[in-house]
Amino acid sequence: MQGKGILVVISGFSGAGKGTLVKRLLCDCDDYALSVSMTTRGMREGEVDGRDYFFVTKDAFEDAIKNDMLVEHASYCGNYYGTPKAYVDKMLSEGKCVILEIEVQGAMQIKEKFPDTLLLFVTPPSIKILENRLRGRGTETEEVIAKRLRQAMDEAKLMEKYEYLIINDDLDECVKQTDEIIHAALFEASRNADFISDMKQQLAEINK
Amino acid sequence: MQGKGILVVISGFSGAGKGTLVKRLLCDCDDYALSVSMTTRGMREGEVDGRDYFFVTKDAFEDAIKNDMLVEHASYCGNYYGTPKAYVDKMLSEGKCVILEIEVQGAMQIKEKFPDTLLLFVTPPSIKILENRLRGRGTETEEVIAKRLRQAMDEAKLMEKYEYLIINDDLDECVKQTDEIIHAALFEASRNADFISDMKQQLAEINK
Repeated sequence: MQGKGILVVISGFSGAGKGTLVKRLLCDCDDYALSVSMTTRGMREGEVDGRDYFFVTKDAFEDAIKNDMLVEHASYCGNYYGTPKAYVDKMLSEGKCVILEIEVQGAMQIKEKFPDTLLLFVTPPSIKILENRLRGRGTETEEVIAKRLRQAMDEAKLMEKYEYLIINDDLDECVKQTDEIIHAALFEASRNADFISDMKQQLAEINK
Repeated sequence: MQGKGILVVISGFSGAGKGTLVKRLLCDCDDYALSVSMTTRGMREGEVDGRDYFFVTKDAFEDAIKNDMLVEHASYCGNYYGTPKAYVDKMLSEGKCVILEIEVQGAMQIKEKFPDTLLLFVTPPSIKILENRLRGRGTETEEVIAKRLRQAMDEAKLMEKYEYLIINDDLDECVKQTDEIIHAALFEASRNADFISDMKQQLAEINK
């Protein structure tokens, strides 16, 4: 078995409970690390550099883009946000599975660049339940809910590009399932090409 | 989620511990069923029809082949052995995962005919350990051990066609891993095409 972790990308419908799931995974299990983003926005009170974000200047961020030092990046409200490759690599080489919560288009880009990435899609058991959850928050206008449901339609088009579905019905069950799925993925033959070629070599030697 | 089980094919090197693993899986967990084979050989004392084998005549077996009623079949010492499709289908529709322990060539044939089949390959952590286990049995001649190791070289060529590797180091750990892997496989997006298309349809309706 390889000693390295996996980069795990978690996407899903807004209201599917991705955020809570990720928090619980990090809290319950030692072998996960959350990817820490790099940003050009100012540090807010209480934030810690290297924990909440890596805070850098615009120049430094643009250098990072130019030198292909980011797994992915986007700009939002005039600031850059991105995932530093070095930090992800460090966590992976320590055997941690690095969790990255990201929307579907970004997920597809990461998978193309890093085919070993594990793509998980979080969904409630039905769209009726999704709608109820969005309404149940009590904080969203009808307009926002309608927008989320239209967006979900676009996201659903990419669902089959994900490797596993995480059906979030009961949260405890969902955390357990996600943990099992990530562990199982470590044993996928496609992620253990080195182990397989090593076994073949040992067999060739013993049969000489 | 689909309510159906998965056909799970377990192969692996001779001496990797497949038999013990399968026994423990069936013993420890309710949601597995062992595939019962059909055979033309005579019933032995203590054997029960439908438990140990489905005992049939040569004519009946050849009819089953002709009518494509077997998942796979082979002949051995002048008798036919095969896996009846109807029994497997019944177990799967009851939500059981049906375990079939079979050699690599047969496994490839099943996967081609039934692409939803989950292929697991059982291997010790190293070939040195495999060799020690074969010797440790104390029942095999050097000639047989050498034959097994040559056979392992052929089997290793197909390892990467399997979906998951089961590294059998510690048996308890191995049983747990296999159980996790089979559970995880139930959530593979490719096995849940119906769920995905159902979600898409619900979203199309709600966004009309």
